[in-house]
Amino acid sequence: MGYYSLPESSRGLVEELKGEEFTFTTIVHIGIGGSSLGPKALSALFRERLSKEIVFLENPDPVDLGGKLEGIDPQSSLFLVVSKSGTTIETLTIFKILLKTLDLQLEGAPNIWTITEEGSPLDRFAATYGLRSFHIPKEVGGRFSVLSSVGIVPLTLAGLDTLHLLEGAGEFRDRFFRREEDHLLHKALFYSLNARRYPINVLFSYASELEEFTKWYVQLWGESLGKRRGGEGVGLTPVGLLGTIDQHSFLQLLIEGPRDKTVTFLKVGHFNTDLEIPDLHLPHLDRSDFVNGSTLSTLLNRECDATREALTRSQVPNDLIEIERIEERAVGELIFYFELLTSATALALGIDAYNQPGVELGKRILRESFL
Amino acid sequence: MGYYSLPESSRGLVEELKGEEFTFTTIVHIGIGGSSLGPKALSALFRERLSKEIVFLENPDPVDLGGKLEGIDPQSSLFLVVSKSGTTIETLTIFKILLKTLDLQLEGAPNIWTITEEGSPLDRFAATYGLRSFHIPKEVGGRFSVLSSVGIVPLTLAGLDTLHLLEGAGEFRDRFFRREEDHLLHKALFYSLNARRYPINVLFSYASELEEFTKWYVQLWGESLGKRRGGEGVGLTPVGLLGTIDQHSFLQLLIEGPRDKTVTFLKVGHFNTDLEIPDLHLPHLDRSDFVNGSTLSTLLNRECDATREALTRSQVPNDLIEIERIEERAVGELIFYFELLTSATALALGIDAYNQPGVELGKRILRESFL
Repeated sequence: MGYYSLPESSRGLVEELKGEEFTFTTIVHIGIGGSSLGPKALSALFRERLSKEIVFLENPDPVDLGGKLEGIDPQSSLFLVVSKSGTTIETLTIFKILLKTLDLQLEGAPNIWTITEEGSPLDRFAATYGLRSFHIPKEVGGRFSVLSSVGIVPLTLAGLDTLHLLEGAGEFRDRFFRREEDHLLHKALFYSLNARRYPINVLFSYASELEEFTKWYVQLWGESLGKRRGGEGVGLTPVGLLGTIDQHSFLQLLIEGPRDKTVTFLKVGHFNTDLEIPDLHLPHLDRSDFVNGSTLSTLLNRECDATREALTRSQVPNDLIEIERIEERAVGELIFYFELLTSATALALGIDAYNQPGVELGKRILRESFL
Repeated sequence: MGYYSLPESSRGLVEELKGEEFTFTTIVHIGIGGSSLGPKALSALFRERLSKEIVFLENPDPVDLGGKLEGIDPQSSLFLVVSKSGTTIETLTIFKILLKTLDLQLEGAPNIWTITEEGSPLDRFAATYGLRSFHIPKEVGGRFSVLSSVGIVPLTLAGLDTLHLLEGAGEFRDRFFRREEDHLLHKALFYSLNARRYPINVLFSYASELEEFTKWYVQLWGESLGKRRGGEGVGLTPVGLLGTIDQHSFLQLLIEGPRDKTVTFLKVGHFNTDLEIPDLHLPHLDRSDFVNGSTLSTLLNRECDATREALTRSQVPNDLIEIERIEERAVGELIFYFELLTSATALALGIDAYNQPGVELGKRILRESFL
């Protein structure tokens, strides 16, 4: 599959960008779906360490977009217009509004770059005005594109060590193909064989910084596996949860509701910063003293363990992924973990993970509604 | 049910608070689950119009909390500690960290208020130090508490017209009990009769400002309906989606995947602000010109209509809720719409909507893990 070779093919991009002087302080990323979920996930995971702010303009919602526009200084911003097909209506519409509202000049503009498939309408547009244009390989689908220019350009510019990100991804892929990560195949087989019994797969992530990553997984899983097979709808429904918050919202349903879900816990071994829980004994609140003197990350991780144990005792099938730290190499591995798991599960289900024929009808109806 | 009378019983609270001078510029809301999802939803819906900033401290995540703590000026902030039981470990732990880190004084503190059940440990703690304490009625469950002091105190202080919010809620309730909103009963009946055929209920909201409201619904639906009934797990799994973004992530699964979902679309008739789509013809990008001269809200709503039509043609059961504008009265109606729908569906399923016995096991395991 196209995405397999990104850990190598994207290296040149990193080296190209690292050799340049970059003076913008803000990166405005205009894109939606596969064009935004990956870079958003990485940006949220590494927020503390990025040297540039990345603003994501995704939804054509007037209140949301209007608010974000007010905060953008066109003099210090680089605008990235990102669309695999080069025709995404939301992205192009937001771009037009930016051009008008911020009075951006197009001819030879050094602060407007495009990221799209070679030869797409957006690529040809860039060529017309002499804009810098990066390409998304034709054989890499949007939702598998985070390690292509889609994620690598903004994150490298923002100071992330994207070479390590690519290395981690490549190492996981190599181990997988050397059959050293066969647990992934077993998991894919379990999901596919039990698709009727467990049609819902939950990813329960324990770190606020993982919330956007979880959304990236939801899109990858849902869109890749929801397909027709011989006239019948197959697929698995992903649900993304955030611990500890969703222990107070969704856990009741997991424990006592229908046994139609598998749960994967995702936790972080060591946090890059931590907070101590003071040894404070407050009158009447002594029932909370059992965590005194511990740390917040310990509480978070013990809650993950306790929730997992409660699910196990309630016979809900579950597993655990633990990454040691949120650092580039480990996140690269994690990206390939989920991408390869998705590919393997699609294979076991006998469907094509890489197309999305179901969304064309809505696009046609939308176009007709304006005629 | 307890929450039925909130539209009247919370009026006194609004009048009390409106008669006071309030000099803080920031409200720091410390709470999780039912204590935060409702006020967060309202805060996101009315962000443009609030006169105070509300900061929500929910997840005991060191990176997330550490970052938020840096932005808090204790001199100009009011701290609301919110927990129905008065024993929520995450909330009390974050409160302790605030006390220590910001060096807050407790005795007679005018800037620390509590919101909890009368006589709870937190209420007694407040009494010990002479802190102002607001009560959540005993008979109102956390996830049905948004119109109690939980939501009314912070939103009234932030300048929302909470009397209109309560009025809208009361009017919808009255119409429902006068049998003028029987579509709600039909819907509840449909969900319960088809719980095996359609175990997943999607709320697809078309406005970024509705994202938090959608999370509030997910919690309300999942936790209220996921229950044991005679040893068997019953319940319906909620999924919250955001249009147009999730057209690029989840729609493929809805259209071509298994036919196990119902979809409710939620849209806003008129946005309080709008953006015009300029009449720009960009070379090679003419396929996006069909929206030129229209507005962003029109595009957003036409996308909602087109997606709904695509689902209808694909035989996915769906319905539409349209609110005319995001204003207090309409949002009050919407809150009662979903709360009454939840109660009616629980009744039809033969389960208790108001308890959550399944989450106790995890709490016990957590406590033991620290001993």
